[in-house]
Amino acid sequence: MRYATYEHHGRHQVGEVRGTTLIPLSGIAELGPVTTPEVLSTAPRDEAGAVPVERVRLLPVVPRPSKIFCVGLNYRDHVTETKRDTPDYPVLFGKFATSLIGPQDDIVLPPESTQVDYEGELVVVIGRPGRRIAESDAVDHVLGYAVANDVTMRDYQYKTHQWMQGKAWDASTPVGPYLVPPEHVDIDNAGIRTVLNGEKMQESDVSQLMFTIPKLIATLSTFTALAPGDLILTGTPGGVGFRRDPQVFLRDGDEITVEVDGVGTIRNTVRATTTIEGGAR
Amino acid sequence: MRYATYEHHGRHQVGEVRGTTLIPLSGIAELGPVTTPEVLSTAPRDEAGAVPVERVRLLPVVPRPSKIFCVGLNYRDHVTETKRDTPDYPVLFGKFATSLIGPQDDIVLPPESTQVDYEGELVVVIGRPGRRIAESDAVDHVLGYAVANDVTMRDYQYKTHQWMQGKAWDASTPVGPYLVPPEHVDIDNAGIRTVLNGEKMQESDVSQLMFTIPKLIATLSTFTALAPGDLILTGTPGGVGFRRDPQVFLRDGDEITVEVDGVGTIRNTVRATTTIEGGAR
Repeated sequence: MRYATYEHHGRHQVGEVRGTTLIPLSGIAELGPVTTPEVLSTAPRDEAGAVPVERVRLLPVVPRPSKIFCVGLNYRDHVTETKRDTPDYPVLFGKFATSLIGPQDDIVLPPESTQVDYEGELVVVIGRPGRRIAESDAVDHVLGYAVANDVTMRDYQYKTHQWMQGKAWDASTPVGPYLVPPEHVDIDNAGIRTVLNGEKMQESDVSQLMFTIPKLIATLSTFTALAPGDLILTGTPGGVGFRRDPQVFLRDGDEITVEVDGVGTIRNTVRATTTIEGGAR
Repeated sequence: MRYATYEHHGRHQVGEVRGTTLIPLSGIAELGPVTTPEVLSTAPRDEAGAVPVERVRLLPVVPRPSKIFCVGLNYRDHVTETKRDTPDYPVLFGKFATSLIGPQDDIVLPPESTQVDYEGELVVVIGRPGRRIAESDAVDHVLGYAVANDVTMRDYQYKTHQWMQGKAWDASTPVGPYLVPPEHVDIDNAGIRTVLNGEKMQESDVSQLMFTIPKLIATLSTFTALAPGDLILTGTPGGVGFRRDPQVFLRDGDEITVEVDGVGTIRNTVRATTTIEGGAR
C-alpha cells in the first residue's frame, strides 16, 4: 500500500498507488493535517477516477506541512567527514513548507549560490498527534515514510553558526515519491543511496541512524506537539559533495536520485536559473 | 492606527483599536496571509460590533504565520555578553506558529527545563509579498510592528550548536499587543525594554540594530519569498538572564513585560506547569 499527493487537471488529489495507476481517495486533496491512518484506510476509493501515474505531476508527498524538522549529523560516517563531535542530542533545524518540491520536479540552482549540494534522506511523516510521546509508542504516530533530498546551499549554510539560510531556500527540497505506511516496509534495515549522474555518492542503511526514529519522535515531541502531516527529515549519510576532495556541487543538467529500499526513489534534474523571481513589487 | 487579533465569544476577529475599544473589521478573522495594507485600510468597520479591549482575549497579533524568522545577536551589547564574534550576516533561526501565545497569556514553565529565559524583541510583520526585495523597497513590504518575548529554554538551546530545541517550545512566545503600521511610529529610534518584577533587565533602542529592518528583509527574501503575515523577530538587546551573574531565570509568579515605544507593551505572568500535556495517545 502506497499513497501519493498529485496534481491532475490543475487539482490536487491524494491517490492510492496500485501498480502504475493512482486511485483517488474521495474528498482528500493533500496528505497533511487531516490524513490520519484511519482517514487513509477508510476514505472511499473513486475507482472511476483512476489515472496512470505518468499522466500526473507528483507533488511533495505532504505539500503543506505545519512543521518540518530536519536532523543534522545522524549517520556516524557523516559526523566523521564533518570533523564534528558525536552529538548526544540530535542536531535540529527547520525548513518551511515553501522549501518543498515534487519528487520529479527540477532542482533550480539559485543565482546567489555556487555551492548547491545534495543530502539524501529518509523522511518520517506523522499521522497521529501527540506531545511527550514515549519511544515505545512512537511508531503508532507514524503515518509512513518517504524520501527527500535536503538540498543545501553550503556557502549560505556556513555564513553563520545557524543553518537556516543554507537550508530554507524556496523550491529546493524534493520529497516523495510516495508515502509508504510502516506496516508495508522493514524500515529499520532499509538501504539508502544517492546517485549523481550514475555515480553512487552516498550509501548507508537506516540501521545506522544514531538517533532512531522513535528517539527522534520522543525528542521532538518533548518541546512541541507533533501533528498529522509534520515531516521529519532524519539526516544524511556520509558522502556529501562539500566534504569530498575535490568538492562536488550540483550543476546544470545533472541527474540526481535518492532511493530508500522499500520506500521509493526521487529523481530530479538540476537546472540553472533562467528567470529570476523578484526585484519587483 | 493600531490593529489587534482577538477572541470574543469564542470567535477570532481582527479589530481596529480606538482608545480602549476594538472595532471589528468585517470578514477578517485574523491578521495573516490575507491582510495586506490595502485590505486593512479598506475593510468595512463594523461599528455596531465595538467591544472594550478589556472584554476580549488578545491573540498573537498574527496567530498562524506561514513563517517565523528569528534573528540572534543583533544588538552589539548582546553579542558582547555572549562572547561571540560580531556577525557579518544575520544569525537566523526559526520558530513554529505553535510557539506563539497572546500578549497577556501566561508563560507556562515546561517541567523539562530549569533555565527559562526572556528576550525582549521588536517584531516586523510582513504585509506585501516579495522575493529578492531591495533594501530601498523594504518598508513597502511591512504591514506593521509588534512586540515579542522570545522566551528561550537555555538548557535546551545549548544541547547542540543548532538552537531549535531551545526556541520552538509550544506556547512559549507572546506576540502583541497590537500591530502598528509603519506610518504611525518612528520605529528607527524607538526604545525597547524588558522589565521583570519591576526591575529593568534589558534596555536599548532600535537604532542599535546591527542588521536593520530593511537589511533583514533583503537578506531573508534572497532565499525565500516573504508573504503577508510572516514575522521577523529582530533580535534582543543585552541583559538576558543567562548571561547575568548570578543568572536569572523565570519563576512561578514572575511578571514580565516587554515594551517598544510607540508600539506597545506585552505583559505576561509566569507560572509553573500544573498539568502536563502528553503521555497519552
